[in-house]
Amino acid sequence: MPTRRQCANAIRALAMDAIEQAQSGHPGAPLGMADMAEALWRHVFKHNPSNPRWPDRDRFVLSNGHASMLLYALLHLMGYDLPLEELINFRQWGARTAGHPERDLDLGIEMTTGPLGEGIASAVGMALAERMLAARYNTAEYTVVNHNTWVFLGDGCLMEGVSHEACSLAGTWGLGKLNALYDANGISIDGKIDAWFTEDVTLRFQAYGWQVIGPVDGHDAAALDAALAEALADTRRPGLIICRTHIGFGSPKVDSETSHGAPLGGDCVSATRAALGWHEPPFTIPEDIYAAWDARAKGQAAEDAWKDIYDRYRAAHPRLALEFTRRMRGELPENWDELAKSAIDQALEAKEVLATRVASRKTLEYLAPHLPELVGGSADLTGSVGTFTPTSQPLDCANHTGNYLFYGVREFGMSAIMNGLALHGGFIPYAGTFLSFVDQAKNALRLAALMRLRAVWVLTHDSIGVGEDGPTHQPVEQLGTMRLIPNFYVWRPCDSVETAVAWRCALECTDAPTALALSRQKTTFCTRSRQQVEDITRGGYVLRECQGQPEIILIATGSEVSLAVEAAEALSQEGRRARVVSMPCSAVFDAQDAAWQEHVLPANVRARLAIEASSADWWRKYVGLDGLVLGMERFGVSAPGPVVMEKFGFTVAHVLELAHRLINNLGPQRP
Amino acid sequence: MPTRRQCANAIRALAMDAIEQAQSGHPGAPLGMADMAEALWRHVFKHNPSNPRWPDRDRFVLSNGHASMLLYALLHLMGYDLPLEELINFRQWGARTAGHPERDLDLGIEMTTGPLGEGIASAVGMALAERMLAARYNTAEYTVVNHNTWVFLGDGCLMEGVSHEACSLAGTWGLGKLNALYDANGISIDGKIDAWFTEDVTLRFQAYGWQVIGPVDGHDAAALDAALAEALADTRRPGLIICRTHIGFGSPKVDSETSHGAPLGGDCVSATRAALGWHEPPFTIPEDIYAAWDARAKGQAAEDAWKDIYDRYRAAHPRLALEFTRRMRGELPENWDELAKSAIDQALEAKEVLATRVASRKTLEYLAPHLPELVGGSADLTGSVGTFTPTSQPLDCANHTGNYLFYGVREFGMSAIMNGLALHGGFIPYAGTFLSFVDQAKNALRLAALMRLRAVWVLTHDSIGVGEDGPTHQPVEQLGTMRLIPNFYVWRPCDSVETAVAWRCALECTDAPTALALSRQKTTFCTRSRQQVEDITRGGYVLRECQGQPEIILIATGSEVSLAVEAAEALSQEGRRARVVSMPCSAVFDAQDAAWQEHVLPANVRARLAIEASSADWWRKYVGLDGLVLGMERFGVSAPGPVVMEKFGFTVAHVLELAHRLINNLGPQRP
Repeated sequence: MPTRRQCANAIRALAMDAIEQAQSGHPGAPLGMADMAEALWRHVFKHNPSNPRWPDRDRFVLSNGHASMLLYALLHLMGYDLPLEELINFRQWGARTAGHPERDLDLGIEMTTGPLGEGIASAVGMALAERMLAARYNTAEYTVVNHNTWVFLGDGCLMEGVSHEACSLAGTWGLGKLNALYDANGISIDGKIDAWFTEDVTLRFQAYGWQVIGPVDGHDAAALDAALAEALADTRRPGLIICRTHIGFGSPKVDSETSHGAPLGGDCVSATRAALGWHEPPFTIPEDIYAAWDARAKGQAAEDAWKDIYDRYRAAHPRLALEFTRRMRGELPENWDELAKSAIDQALEAKEVLATRVASRKTLEYLAPHLPELVGGSADLTGSVGTFTPTSQPLDCANHTGNYLFYGVREFGMSAIMNGLALHGGFIPYAGTFLSFVDQAKNALRLAALMRLRAVWVLTHDSIGVGEDGPTHQPVEQLGTMRLIPNFYVWRPCDSVETAVAWRCALECTDAPTALALSRQKTTFCTRSRQQVEDITRGGYVLRECQGQPEIILIATGSEVSLAVEAAEALSQEGRRARVVSMPCSAVFDAQDAAWQEHVLPANVRARLAIEASSADWWRKYVGLDGLVLGMERFGVSAPGPVVMEKFGFTVAHVLELAHRLINNLGPQRP
Repeated sequence: MPTRRQCANAIRALAMDAIEQAQSGHPGAPLGMADMAEALWRHVFKHNPSNPRWPDRDRFVLSNGHASMLLYALLHLMGYDLPLEELINFRQWGARTAGHPERDLDLGIEMTTGPLGEGIASAVGMALAERMLAARYNTAEYTVVNHNTWVFLGDGCLMEGVSHEACSLAGTWGLGKLNALYDANGISIDGKIDAWFTEDVTLRFQAYGWQVIGPVDGHDAAALDAALAEALADTRRPGLIICRTHIGFGSPKVDSETSHGAPLGGDCVSATRAALGWHEPPFTIPEDIYAAWDARAKGQAAEDAWKDIYDRYRAAHPRLALEFTRRMRGELPENWDELAKSAIDQALEAKEVLATRVASRKTLEYLAPHLPELVGGSADLTGSVGTFTPTSQPLDCANHTGNYLFYGVREFGMSAIMNGLALHGGFIPYAGTFLSFVDQAKNALRLAALMRLRAVWVLTHDSIGVGEDGPTHQPVEQLGTMRLIPNFYVWRPCDSVETAVAWRCALECTDAPTALALSRQKTTFCTRSRQQVEDITRGGYVLRECQGQPEIILIATGSEVSLAVEAAEALSQEGRRARVVSMPCSAVFDAQDAAWQEHVLPANVRARLAIEASSADWWRKYVGLDGLVLGMERFGVSAPGPVVMEKFGFTVAHVLELAHRLINNLGPQRP
């Protein structure tokens, strides 16, 4: 029977070997955290390597994602579907062992990490998801949801602001089943952290209402066992176990930043092997150590025991079980299609002149009663962004019932927590702030896109039309910023009908996040044919057609669509042929076949005018060098919204002036 | 003699009146903080309303910027150049009283605030600037730099992650002359904060090494006086004075979020006036209250006393005084032109094949000894981003000498602090992280642009060329994100010469921030004529010309320029006329006159291929509907850099294939 240290050393050896093989990677952290990993994963962690999708598995997040080899070594050793070849191929094209962990549920990788701090922040969302599901689905007799969320994190994670935002909320929410092991090695890339990280972490986390354990010796298995037991015993407060560790443990580069971000080098690896008493050749793990790590039998037994309970639960509570299964699968309710259609029909029939933020709230009000998986919230702008509906119940921190989260003024934390809710499964998170503050959350949106999560950002006050609050609150470049994120959908609907369709598309989009950009001010209701209503789902469509080949195409989104329509009417009265294209979601439009794109924007019509109170440059994509953009080339100004819109040229008269220039071929030939 | 409460009530009255007049604004906070403002500004704050640019004035930041009317009322009452008409015009087009404060040094507005948390974060930079200037310029006999930095902030500021990042550093740096008054009113927009802000702020700030005072009654002048004195007495630790206040003080909406973000309404204003015992008509301040507030005489005397010392200082230390004055004026050294030219010449002569991040370090190494105003740093990636030079001295927290800041893993905090250093005056901050992590700092870059600050972000690892670290570390959309910010310059140089020119332009750009996007991998050195070297400053120029009218133009930046040049060579050998345009800074190119733009990109050459390992869409601006972009339409992949570049088509062969399509008119007609 190998010792626990020998088991931990297997991680160390694999990490060193893979990093040497790749000639790239971060050896210091796996060497330092191997004993922590052994203590958690071999003795406490609940999982079944043969079924990484078991709903009641513990969740693990490697917040300091550069330690990726630690995770790959663990998954390999414990019997996940990660053969040695994948470790040998660490950081190579086509390997499943990327430089930083990338969400792969078939492999046991719960989350993509790398940007520090976001792992712990999303883990807060996962832990909350567990508690909320437990509150809804567990019964007096049957506990079907009952797992822990574990996080490894480093100094860098704690420096990042998002850790503050999310951990403060974790304390407030009483997420006792969230426990983080802090790899306190005192070293970051720039060296000893004494000069830039002097805060008292214990005090700080106590301030958040966490249980802080330690510091314990992060290389002492017994001390780690005791700390883990203490953390598990407190189910009321999230736990932070401070583990004093040595980065690059066992190597000549121990306790030095030189072990952090580059391969150790052959000699150093040899010396480390010797110091650890590890004498196997590279990528070789003795059978007894494999056996000691193998978690498949125990894991299968654990899952089987759960299944047994779940089967009885399903028999006793068929409706609950059906809903739980559906939610965990990420499937919408059976009657979804009908429901979504009737939400759109309702908007069609009501013909209301609304701000799209209000239209969004109304759509939500209609859909929410049927979608228990929706979990809403706002970064302290609930009334403004319209995310709270009659179905919304504020989270009760005592028992975690409720489906609405008051995130406070924490856009980044909110967004990372949304990711965690989506990652866990069972939820479709949506939450809102002002569009201009999406800046603060940007990297969480990026990670959502990279991880292919379904989550919906409700971003209101979507242009200079915001008015008096001025340029800090008036988005200019934010729509473009989000549209440039791969695999991310930005909808900017123009009225209540497009808003309802946008919500439908967002909720149906199982593998990508969506942002809804919504107006503060009222928009005009557009009359459409049944076919046009269908066409909205194509992202861009002809909203107002002219007779024959158009002389000019006006492309607009959101609150500027009515401007385009009015201008087209005026042009029509002049005998001009002007088409209006509404383009609520360019990413969806871009994904249509060439025939549709040609139908909407015929290649030979080059007199094109894009109208959006947002960065002009972005629209060159559709208007080219011959067209014009009525957009924003500068920051906005504080003044009443209609005044600002007018001063920046968002008037029918100005649209007409530009349209005439284009029709008369006087449009400037841009570089 | 009016009472102190009466003086405070003048703020309250003006705030209510202006907000009613505008029918827009946030009355709750000015009503709640008026007594705090009276205590600080009338009794402690060092300033001269007649010269808001006095270098040794105290700095004030209203971090909860929605309380803007508090500041405008203060400035008006104390004798700044802000007549009553401006208050009456609150939030109107053309007024200097924007919805949120906008930096206006002639008026006494030090910083644009509104996005919560960034005010306190930038104030950390201001306070650091003061200490660093004091360390350099004060002598045993003469103290010419000695002022405090004051901040008002609210619950929302403390929720935001950036407050964590910056305040932790303020404690580490021992910024004893930074003092923040926390308007602890227990209310944010969503209501009573008990459900989303339960952290123990005292403990948290003690964890950061701050002096925490209070809670004190924020409406008790004597208690505030005592707290301010206590804060001033501790010059070793930054101070947080927790002021328990009542939002909407005096109004029927006191202690309620209903007073936060909307005008009180006429009846409520009347009731408030009555409750406060304020009987003046709107916008009317009794003379005795004006007199009690007027700070001009005292301020002038204070500045005169300082001037007296400064004159003697200048006589004793002419060189120091000259440098101090130059720096505070934001002027570069007299020999700057020569210096900049020789930095570029050095790169020209060395002809080195370098990663542009190394070229950047070399340029810095050359310039830094002559620019004491440079203050460098990195978010824990010093070695990778090349911001530390032989001239760099780490900040010594004991005496604040040094010119290099280890910011730790805090991109947003770093960037907001850079803004503060620039706002204070006397410094040109530059600091680095990986380009993909600029996401975390985005709003600070935006505020820098909005405030027209000179600051330089050194953003390395600027494409998928990063390689093994994978998609979380490989920027795709970040260049576009920054290019869409108005008044922001993004340089992506292709070799050592363009890098040196980019640094020159960045340092000369006094009214806008710059980001340098730099490669991790080596780039090719480009041979250029003297004229071409000059042309770099135009942002886009012909790097490789062909004989006669080009058949195709290849536009590229950074590490992809060599690809364009190689492809052009190959095309030339085929007898094709291919021009290569290097476009290191599109914003600068866009600002050139039409003749230059036509010279570089003739309107009638439509076969254009843009090459950049970054979001393709952005480049449509230059290639239009007829051109092609070789860019990134998805996230990257973890694998060695050259492999990734090849797999995504960044090869000469692929460029040639696309070029042939364009030349043969086979380019797709994009929608």
